[in-house]
Amino acid sequence: MQDLQIPERLLLGPGPSNVHERVLHALKQPVIGHLDPVFLSLLDDVQEMLKQLFRTHSGLTLPISGTGSAGMEACLVNLIEPGDTALVAVQGVFGERMVSIVERAGGRSLRVEAEMGKAVPEDRFIEAIRAHQPDLVALVHAETSTGVAQPVREIAHAAREAGALVVLDCVTSLSGMDVSFDSWAIDAAYSGTQKCLSCPPGLSPIALGPRALERIERRAKPVQSWYLDLSLIGRYFGEERVYHHTAPVNMIYALHTALQIVLEEGLEARFARHRSVHQHLVEGLGKLGFQMLVQPAYRLPMLNAVIPPFEDEARVRRSLLTRYGIEVGPGLGKLAGRIWRVGLMGENARMEVVDRFLDALRELV
Amino acid sequence: MQDLQIPERLLLGPGPSNVHERVLHALKQPVIGHLDPVFLSLLDDVQEMLKQLFRTHSGLTLPISGTGSAGMEACLVNLIEPGDTALVAVQGVFGERMVSIVERAGGRSLRVEAEMGKAVPEDRFIEAIRAHQPDLVALVHAETSTGVAQPVREIAHAAREAGALVVLDCVTSLSGMDVSFDSWAIDAAYSGTQKCLSCPPGLSPIALGPRALERIERRAKPVQSWYLDLSLIGRYFGEERVYHHTAPVNMIYALHTALQIVLEEGLEARFARHRSVHQHLVEGLGKLGFQMLVQPAYRLPMLNAVIPPFEDEARVRRSLLTRYGIEVGPGLGKLAGRIWRVGLMGENARMEVVDRFLDALRELV
Repeated sequence: MQDLQIPERLLLGPGPSNVHERVLHALKQPVIGHLDPVFLSLLDDVQEMLKQLFRTHSGLTLPISGTGSAGMEACLVNLIEPGDTALVAVQGVFGERMVSIVERAGGRSLRVEAEMGKAVPEDRFIEAIRAHQPDLVALVHAETSTGVAQPVREIAHAAREAGALVVLDCVTSLSGMDVSFDSWAIDAAYSGTQKCLSCPPGLSPIALGPRALERIERRAKPVQSWYLDLSLIGRYFGEERVYHHTAPVNMIYALHTALQIVLEEGLEARFARHRSVHQHLVEGLGKLGFQMLVQPAYRLPMLNAVIPPFEDEARVRRSLLTRYGIEVGPGLGKLAGRIWRVGLMGENARMEVVDRFLDALRELV
Repeated sequence: MQDLQIPERLLLGPGPSNVHERVLHALKQPVIGHLDPVFLSLLDDVQEMLKQLFRTHSGLTLPISGTGSAGMEACLVNLIEPGDTALVAVQGVFGERMVSIVERAGGRSLRVEAEMGKAVPEDRFIEAIRAHQPDLVALVHAETSTGVAQPVREIAHAAREAGALVVLDCVTSLSGMDVSFDSWAIDAAYSGTQKCLSCPPGLSPIALGPRALERIERRAKPVQSWYLDLSLIGRYFGEERVYHHTAPVNMIYALHTALQIVLEEGLEARFARHRSVHQHLVEGLGKLGFQMLVQPAYRLPMLNAVIPPFEDEARVRRSLLTRYGIEVGPGLGKLAGRIWRVGLMGENARMEVVDRFLDALRELV
């Protein structure tokens, strides 16, 4: 039997993104035990580095042993008890997913919706918070299905003023644009490893502030999920190191290295790089007749929703993949067949990556 | 910043086990998209190879994107609706975990218990099934906290006769001893990658039979967990390939290779290897004054619960780790401080591994 050989791809979809050689080197290190002192020290580092990425001093940070959606579910089901009201911003697929999780947890969901390709206006959102006085407010910072950046700070402060907990989805934004957990007044946030962190998919870094931890502490009923019960998981990530489940050891190695790479570059430099490379893509695609779905003020730098100037978008995407080894993302949900989602995340937010993509497109269309 | 370097350990605890060099080679392959045709073809292979491991023709097999406990939760919460009755065999920590998950899902749990270090007697178990007529029967094949092998076949057939679904925990047994999903009349089973499969921790292979799929189909309420909702996950693993969450791509590479290695050896040869190496360990430890917790008929080959002939077991375990790089497992729950759990799983079920362990012990005690 031959060793597995996977072809190189340039991953310009909504994630996963390409990862640095050092991350793959970390991934292939020998397996050690999840209670080995060497491993526990790596976990300490990971938790500390995540604090820097989320920009929190007071919060508990840890990687959930599942993908970004597991992080979403962990944050929501731990903070909601049956009968609680959650006000959820719905601007696309991931807002809808939050609504579904709230309802499965026995919560009552209220929606504040945006038009497709737009953010929820802050004034309307804040009005809804004041009108409904929900127990929890949930919103997606970077909606990967539409390429929209949702303003957060004013909304989160209004929610805290109204006594609601704030859950923020940073799956696509973390380390590609500013996420300021403490100063924005966020109570729980989750991300994914396979976007701007440029680490393989499989882990969901989360942050929990003191109000979230206190809410978990005073739950009347145990969390519906044993696997995602943060009061149990927190004991493994705390001083006691109480066994909960076997940590995904090699994925933690990879995350450790990916976080080091982010911090070596520096957050502000990384954000600036994402912005300038995004600008380069917008200009290049404009010359090829592509239109942007989202207005400039609300465009995500790392996830570009673009409208191709030709009919058979699926055929061109296939040719990009098979002839050039370049993956771009199709539209999701209502936008299927209408847009492409072009990701420039982490390692892929590079001028030369954009040029390679534009060159391929010029040859194809 | 230096590249991450992790020390080599000989992992003789309850898992993770050491993995073959080919598995690490697979793990470090470049990331590709979760909808890339190359990746989908690997997923097909994985599902097909899992069928062979679980010995099922009719079942749906797939890897859950989480550790073994996520597989446990997935099987239970999809098959139980609030008010359903589950009869759970409790012989140790993992039976207790099942009870907790059943109750969090709104199920009514009934227990049939074994004395510590023993299996639940088949006649008593079958009697309980007939007396209680539960909706579901759940049992752990290889209880990793006590080293006990639970007989399954007669109990599962009695459960099916009584109209109950049967959920089997094969986390530690799969590919180390016979698991016959179809002929034993199992409806849902789950395992973990980090035991006898000798793959890093992070995935939970599961199998679902036609009765389980039919039960999921006719649920009155959606599954409480979105992340573990098998009716949604099944659409990604079915013909449609509908996006649910981003698959943990590199972990799937590793599992693909680990399964190939298992099937190259052959299941029966692998079971025989685990048995003979276990026998070698029992003889060697006996000469050093260790006692076995479990009676011969119920001993697991891959997880040996042994009573050390000295007081300060924690100190000796620490010396094994720091001086010899050998990890053995401590007792869990009520057995903490009283036993060691010596795992000989997958790649580590080798005569020379046992000899290295015994040599180290002879020097230490």
